Amino acid sequence: MDHERLSRVREALEEAGVDALVSRLPENVFFLSGHWPLCGWTFYAFPRQGRPLCIAPHCDEAEAAAELWDADLQTFPFGILSAGNPYEEIAGRLKTARKAAGWSTVGCESGFESVSPSWNTAEPAIPAAATRRLLEKVFGADRLTDATELLNGLRACKTELALEGLRRVNEISTFGLRAFQEAVVIGVTGVELVAAVEHAIMTQGTGYHGAVRVRAFAQVATGPAETAKGYRPMEISTTRKMEHGDVALLELGVVADGYWADRTRVRVAGKPTAEQQKVFDIVKRAQNAAIATVRSGVPAGDVDEAARAVVRLAGYGERFFHVTGHGLGFRYHEPIPLIAPGVESVLETGMVHSVEPGIYYPEMGGIRLEDDVVVTEVGAEVLGPFESELAG
Amino acid sequence: MDHERLSRVREALEEAGVDALVSRLPENVFFLSGHWPLCGWTFYAFPRQGRPLCIAPHCDEAEAAAELWDADLQTFPFGILSAGNPYEEIAGRLKTARKAAGWSTVGCESGFESVSPSWNTAEPAIPAAATRRLLEKVFGADRLTDATELLNGLRACKTELALEGLRRVNEISTFGLRAFQEAVVIGVTGVELVAAVEHAIMTQGTGYHGAVRVRAFAQVATGPAETAKGYRPMEISTTRKMEHGDVALLELGVVADGYWADRTRVRVAGKPTAEQQKVFDIVKRAQNAAIATVRSGVPAGDVDEAARAVVRLAGYGERFFHVTGHGLGFRYHEPIPLIAPGVESVLETGMVHSVEPGIYYPEMGGIRLEDDVVVTEVGAEVLGPFESELAG
Repeated sequence: MDHERLSRVREALEEAGVDALVSRLPENVFFLSGHWPLCGWTFYAFPRQGRPLCIAPHCDEAEAAAELWDADLQTFPFGILSAGNPYEEIAGRLKTARKAAGWSTVGCESGFESVSPSWNTAEPAIPAAATRRLLEKVFGADRLTDATELLNGLRACKTELALEGLRRVNEISTFGLRAFQEAVVIGVTGVELVAAVEHAIMTQGTGYHGAVRVRAFAQVATGPAETAKGYRPMEISTTRKMEHGDVALLELGVVADGYWADRTRVRVAGKPTAEQQKVFDIVKRAQNAAIATVRSGVPAGDVDEAARAVVRLAGYGERFFHVTGHGLGFRYHEPIPLIAPGVESVLETGMVHSVEPGIYYPEMGGIRLEDDVVVTEVGAEVLGPFESELAG
Repeated sequence: MDHERLSRVREALEEAGVDALVSRLPENVFFLSGHWPLCGWTFYAFPRQGRPLCIAPHCDEAEAAAELWDADLQTFPFGILSAGNPYEEIAGRLKTARKAAGWSTVGCESGFESVSPSWNTAEPAIPAAATRRLLEKVFGADRLTDATELLNGLRACKTELALEGLRRVNEISTFGLRAFQEAVVIGVTGVELVAAVEHAIMTQGTGYHGAVRVRAFAQVATGPAETAKGYRPMEISTTRKMEHGDVALLELGVVADGYWADRTRVRVAGKPTAEQQKVFDIVKRAQNAAIATVRSGVPAGDVDEAARAVVRLAGYGERFFHVTGHGLGFRYHEPIPLIAPGVESVLETGMVHSVEPGIYYPEMGGIRLEDDVVVTEVGAEVLGPFESELAG
């Protein structure tokens, strides 16, 4: 059980005057309970005082019972002929809990517009009008308050238990980085590289230090035209065969039991050009400079500037047109911290963020390196370290 | 361009008194426009009269321009340092469009609580409070009407263009069914089977008849304990090695350029027991009986009963405890039609649904077969036919 996490949540609820959080987004259910929902139909009521209540579809019961830290577990039939209306089932249980505990102000998840899927990534279940109606019926519309900012704030500084999960998923991601490194050869396609990376992570990652639910989401751009757009949030991998001197850019998201990693590597088929090698070295120096700047108490903007100065002094400042990093952990991307120009908020111990400088232009393509780090009192801990070169 | 689809939508808007639909869920943007968003930040305004407006992040521009049937395309900077607030960018463009076109009543997507991700499956973008505020600001809260039911109704009967997409994705799914069939041997694990199926679909499916964006989501349960729970919406595949006589159950979702397939196969490592073979034969007969009943004008409940009667007469009625099928196409699961006991709504030409009887009990495990069919005037068309046996 993550006592540290739970006592931080309880303190924040006390301070905000919120009696309970009612969550159904898998990332928040996981954050508050230790249980990562399977199909996305789990509701979790976390009170400031007293025992939490997990209302889960019966098909998720075994995993909920095994993973929940400390909660009453109630289930309702789901996905079978004898199942009733899930909203009514959930509302009934929440109403009973509210009456027993006397909750008045209740925090909900109205503000999440980027979400982490449950284990069922093919079909996310999300809170929309029906969930809102359910909560209004149970708690009263005027008693509901949006807890999005509060949850994002609480999630920003990871506890030791979360860091264990994040170390593990980043180590698992290295199975994919290694497979990528080995598979980039003349004639391979971006689609084949995606398949190789995801295959390696699925087969080598599942069971790694006890990891049970592992899934990778790889994107590989190849060649100048594709990789020059490799800064995009979502790349399309193609069946184009890599030619001598083409760079491949791997953007990799991995989830293991609810914790996320976000990595990027580049690799050239055959021998890199002098230009590619030069840009790669600049990006690597920029990444190292940023990582060397990370420490609790440092303004996030200073970390961005450390990377950006290296790129700017090398003459590629305008080619590095995105942020240096973002928070992550309970989702692929989290809003805190944001490692961007001019950000004055200081890094705090336990924050986890990416460090991902990149340089992109049509003649050469795109080169980015990305790793995830933890902010500590004395510097940065790189999660799942994995050294990689452009070729060789 | 899908003229048939668009004229059906315009007629439905006319009938409902809705001036325009404003959509951001990738499945509805795709349904209305032909363009399947990459990162999930595309808004699409489809008016009853006049030209639609697509507001896309600049990083999705090339694909939007290539895929959109007929729409004004406007972009806003996204995910780079020079980008502003996306909500303000989008609101400005929508407001201008509203003023020019004079839309009054506007349909929105408040009611979708199960959604299809954009191409970026690792981090769905969804409409929550900020999207609601944006729409209220642009159109006025009292002018917004929930178009969920209208959209679900329109999506139910697939046009010929959609059927082409659904044929193709179901054909692509057979690469995974074949890989599964070949890989089920004594000693293989569920996780290895998942990886093999997904690898086959990624490498063989991308480029198949022009398919550009392909992704598979496989779940494989093995052995009696796991497969007896194989009816769950979401299974956990394990590193347990298959033993002689174990059954493996593959549940497979595949998306290709916005169209979905949903298949299930079972396979035994080594020689099936008499009991497994008996149950498999019953399930196959049940599936065939249901498919033989499908025809436009037939009540959906009759199709369910055709499958259920076979299972019941064989003495396993209580072991088949889920519905016989569900709609699908623009999502992994769609609400129309529902092939379940007692459903009186009749099937209509162009509806696409799964046919998936199953029998589950702890001593034997679970056996299910699932294929997707199109309702026609004369019967059912099975999409991506693929014959499979329990072993051999």
